Amino acid sequence: MTDTTTTGGTATMYESFFQSQLQGLRDDGNYRVFAELERKAGAFPRARHYDGDANADITVWCSNDYLGMGQSRDVLQAMHDALDSCGAGAGGTRNISGTNHHHVLLERELADLHGKEAALLFTSGYVSNWAALGTLAAKLPNCVVLSDACNHASMIEGIRHSRAECQIFRHNDPAHLDELLSKIDPSRPKLIAFESVYSMDGDIGPIKEICDVADKYGAMTYLDEVHGVGLYGPRGGGVAEREGLMDRITVIEGTLGKAFGVMGGYIAASSALCDFVRSFASGFIFTTALPPAVAAGACASVRHLKASEIERFRHKERVAKVRMRLAAAGIPTMANDSHIIPVMVGDPKKCKMISDWLMEHHGIYVQPINYPTVPKGTERLRLTPSPVHSDDDIDLLVDALSEIWSHCALARTAVAA
Amino acid sequence: MTDTTTTGGTATMYESFFQSQLQGLRDDGNYRVFAELERKAGAFPRARHYDGDANADITVWCSNDYLGMGQSRDVLQAMHDALDSCGAGAGGTRNISGTNHHHVLLERELADLHGKEAALLFTSGYVSNWAALGTLAAKLPNCVVLSDACNHASMIEGIRHSRAECQIFRHNDPAHLDELLSKIDPSRPKLIAFESVYSMDGDIGPIKEICDVADKYGAMTYLDEVHGVGLYGPRGGGVAEREGLMDRITVIEGTLGKAFGVMGGYIAASSALCDFVRSFASGFIFTTALPPAVAAGACASVRHLKASEIERFRHKERVAKVRMRLAAAGIPTMANDSHIIPVMVGDPKKCKMISDWLMEHHGIYVQPINYPTVPKGTERLRLTPSPVHSDDDIDLLVDALSEIWSHCALARTAVAA
Repeated sequence: MTDTTTTGGTATMYESFFQSQLQGLRDDGNYRVFAELERKAGAFPRARHYDGDANADITVWCSNDYLGMGQSRDVLQAMHDALDSCGAGAGGTRNISGTNHHHVLLERELADLHGKEAALLFTSGYVSNWAALGTLAAKLPNCVVLSDACNHASMIEGIRHSRAECQIFRHNDPAHLDELLSKIDPSRPKLIAFESVYSMDGDIGPIKEICDVADKYGAMTYLDEVHGVGLYGPRGGGVAEREGLMDRITVIEGTLGKAFGVMGGYIAASSALCDFVRSFASGFIFTTALPPAVAAGACASVRHLKASEIERFRHKERVAKVRMRLAAAGIPTMANDSHIIPVMVGDPKKCKMISDWLMEHHGIYVQPINYPTVPKGTERLRLTPSPVHSDDDIDLLVDALSEIWSHCALARTAVAA
Repeated sequence: MTDTTTTGGTATMYESFFQSQLQGLRDDGNYRVFAELERKAGAFPRARHYDGDANADITVWCSNDYLGMGQSRDVLQAMHDALDSCGAGAGGTRNISGTNHHHVLLERELADLHGKEAALLFTSGYVSNWAALGTLAAKLPNCVVLSDACNHASMIEGIRHSRAECQIFRHNDPAHLDELLSKIDPSRPKLIAFESVYSMDGDIGPIKEICDVADKYGAMTYLDEVHGVGLYGPRGGGVAEREGLMDRITVIEGTLGKAFGVMGGYIAASSALCDFVRSFASGFIFTTALPPAVAAGACASVRHLKASEIERFRHKERVAKVRMRLAAAGIPTMANDSHIIPVMVGDPKKCKMISDWLMEHHGIYVQPINYPTVPKGTERLRLTPSPVHSDDDIDLLVDALSEIWSHCALARTAVAA
């Protein structure tokens, strides 16, 4: 950057820099335009789309409120009640007047969900990963972190923040993890960080095999279950619950903002570990606690999904139906064993164009997923069917995708059915 | 750490490490015990204290809900309404289906509050500082950050995360800032990060003088107003509004979780700067958006405090009264020009003991503030009088402090009145 000695010129210089960076994103087709929505409680997946003078009711196909719990009567009633009894905000950090009874109840509920001694709440899943991994890796003397190559940004930033040594193992590759660990001094603390369901590809990590390697080398395991909790396992404890592996994971990290439909993040682990993170993590200590009503709503959601299987059953059925219909239409999707259906486009501008066309012509909202959320060349539409999508919704979606695929002469897969 | 090759031994080894670290905190008197509260909407500053079998109604004297807006009818009604219309959570990141109409309205309201082109919401004030400073300092080529020595942990972590060069200037010392800037290559981008009201000492930064130095050297200014917004200025725009300086600040950062009584953080700045942070900040991009009801409540609070001066007037009056009464009783406080009253104790164990005694014997809750929130040797009780504290509340507080001061033969100041 050039001369900064005059004020007006300086401001212009900084502004020019910001604008040139934004123009770079536009040129590459990676500039993000947020869809302004007003979700309609009781009518999910319907929402009002605000678009200048062209507001319209649309159907959302890309929400992470995977089960529609954001409109659950139990959840909303718990939030209304807590608002009436406790007011709006927590009023402070957890340490300085901000610990509310509802936080404590929720932490107990989450510890129970995962069969752990304790749980610790954070303001978001992002912060829980960043703060917990950042603190563990920084404070354990001479710690080395083994991190899956496809880990979420929040984990990467937490590990980076810790300044601990970090070795990347190939995605979902326990053999490579074993190879890396075999070369590390056995006396060093070791922390393996990975996910159950990877958000953008929807593939599922080999949890058992990674735990086996961890045991072999005496490593702690840190499992991000944000796309698993509420959705998998008989009580919604996640993929590790479904596979009977929760007791083999040192730290299970989850979110209250996706399948549980509210907001917030957490870890579940031993009492000492949670207390350690509680006591040393800057991102936990120096921030205002979640509003009591948010904690109460999340607690109601966790309790509901511990007892009720209907949402998970219907969710699986809807996902299978959408997959089958897309396959029959030859729309290319990425295969995986989860609830996430990536429809592959492979070009940022086409991806955005298709998304805009779906919204404009069919009132179907699927956000284009471009770099840096996914690698360049793998741009996609990420569909998340939910229990509240009807057969008609599916028909309209598949017909619209088929139409635009023909219209743009996009490649189809061999039709399976 | 020693041998980690057997599983049971490994788990024990990690657990032992956590426990020994926690024991260290206990030995130093720095182990934090959270008070479990249930605030009572409509009865602030009263709350229920959960303490095993000894639950009791108590008076909170250390909340950062400075004006009691957490129980405002406007705020609670807006939250109830948004829950009914939009449901519980946002359902996604801001980019992927999570931008709600209420976020957009709130961002407009905040831009207007600070006289800026735009504003950008984050999940907390901590995240807004961490993400905005981290992104600006990392992305501006060869940027150097000038950081006040007493900046909040969230700013320090953001700057550290950016890996930009950081120079610390002496607390509230524009001359030292000038000296440091005079030695920096004029062509480098420069970012000055500081606060208006410092949380723990309650002193106020020399905003005008820092802006003058910034202009002289062509530096951007980043002002944390989290303890100022809602409280100072004719519309609650903060100390910079009160002093007519908002247009001289490049980035104003604030929170919705203190005087506004809800949750969340934000920056207000030029459109290009906000769009730049929106487009590049990991901590903004990869996290679930605030619940619509939280945004709606915060919006109602900001609107209310833009128009209403009563809360600020009464707040000032209460703070002055508490100060006067403490001075008359010879209870040592730290002098400052803000609403924060630090009662100095200077020892972590005594500080906790006094806090426990106030709770047990008088139902008065003031959290002990120990290291690392304040430097060792400056442990304190941080009082935050609010418009909802009555004359009786003040009498009880001052009498109780006076009693324990006598009981423990703690030093008093010369009695002023």
